[in-house]
Amino acid sequence: MTPTITAFERSPDGGKGLARDMRVRWALEEVGQPYNVRLVSFSEMKQPAHRALHPFGQIPTYESGDLTLFESGAIVLHIAERHTGLLPDDANSRARAIAWMFAALNTMEPPIVDREIATYLERDEAWYEQRLRVLEGRIRNRLGELSSHLGDADWLDGAFSAGDLMMVEVLLRLKDLGMLDDYPNLSTYVARGEARPAFKRAFAAQLAVFTGKQPTG
Amino acid sequence: MTPTITAFERSPDGGKGLARDMRVRWALEEVGQPYNVRLVSFSEMKQPAHRALHPFGQIPTYESGDLTLFESGAIVLHIAERHTGLLPDDANSRARAIAWMFAALNTMEPPIVDREIATYLERDEAWYEQRLRVLEGRIRNRLGELSSHLGDADWLDGAFSAGDLMMVEVLLRLKDLGMLDDYPNLSTYVARGEARPAFKRAFAAQLAVFTGKQPTG
Repeated sequence: MTPTITAFERSPDGGKGLARDMRVRWALEEVGQPYNVRLVSFSEMKQPAHRALHPFGQIPTYESGDLTLFESGAIVLHIAERHTGLLPDDANSRARAIAWMFAALNTMEPPIVDREIATYLERDEAWYEQRLRVLEGRIRNRLGELSSHLGDADWLDGAFSAGDLMMVEVLLRLKDLGMLDDYPNLSTYVARGEARPAFKRAFAAQLAVFTGKQPTG
Repeated sequence: MTPTITAFERSPDGGKGLARDMRVRWALEEVGQPYNVRLVSFSEMKQPAHRALHPFGQIPTYESGDLTLFESGAIVLHIAERHTGLLPDDANSRARAIAWMFAALNTMEPPIVDREIATYLERDEAWYEQRLRVLEGRIRNRLGELSSHLGDADWLDGAFSAGDLMMVEVLLRLKDLGMLDDYPNLSTYVARGEARPAFKRAFAAQLAVFTGKQPTG
């Protein structure tokens, strides 16, 4: 059964791989599972038909046979559990890889998204620069801790896992801001993720939605 | 093997069950797994010994035999996978219960925590009231969507699951603010969670840390 995922008809990032369908695309590419994509507009996302798949009216969703899922973390974990390549076989290593998925989504991503929301909603407010410094301080605290943990390892805990996939995806949100530049090991960690053939295929596919060009290679 | 978890030596909430060890305590009580608790001070949390267990210097952690985990979501999922009572047997229902765990942690909790951070850090700023309205608007949007999904059901997807455990825990952060009052089905949903014997045992145990009184019953 070929699963179907949903993605933005017009991605706010213009195809830079920051929309959350990218995580699911990358996971599917890592495990070699073909998939269909159904694009939804911002208005369609809030209609009852899409809300039946995703109660919060967002993307991505995942449909395979009788199963419908939402939340990119849950979808990536579901894919990782049913195929080889994204979770270690050893039970303890597997649990730690899943812990890193949660860490990416619950510890690293919220302050990063807070900063993004501020740039959308508060850019014209008198307090914007002051708050931005506070928000970036919170992000840097987390980056420092993550950098200390990673050290000179290639991945967060042994071999590449769904935990790295999610962490790289979250850190990518900081790349264009230059916020990774002070943490060389995190910069190369992200670059290592981007260099994976599965990442490249997923990235090209989501970019093609925006450019209208079919991915090559 | 009796697992050991960590919790705040002095919980910022004074024992109201909002610290993240409560989620893990509740899960362990639901499945009938005894556990030990090691209390850590705010300074100990940032020391190398605790950082070796939790790279971000927070609580809770979970240690059982050779396994150390962090992130309350990952710990609850680990417990749910290894015991009966927190995840359905049916594969699709199980995947959906896990999706609700991620929804609680990634879709519901971030705007709620944003509001809490604002009350700590921005209460004296000129912009505080204006931002608070924006933050509470974001929370209400999510509550409305969750309320629509829940309808008149007891739990989010069939029987009580780890997804409900996590969602009730997140919504509890809003209870004393009165923000659930406009959503009667969410208020009764949270009350239904609090009425579970396992919740009551966990709540009493974490409160006892603060009051110094041993839980009874």
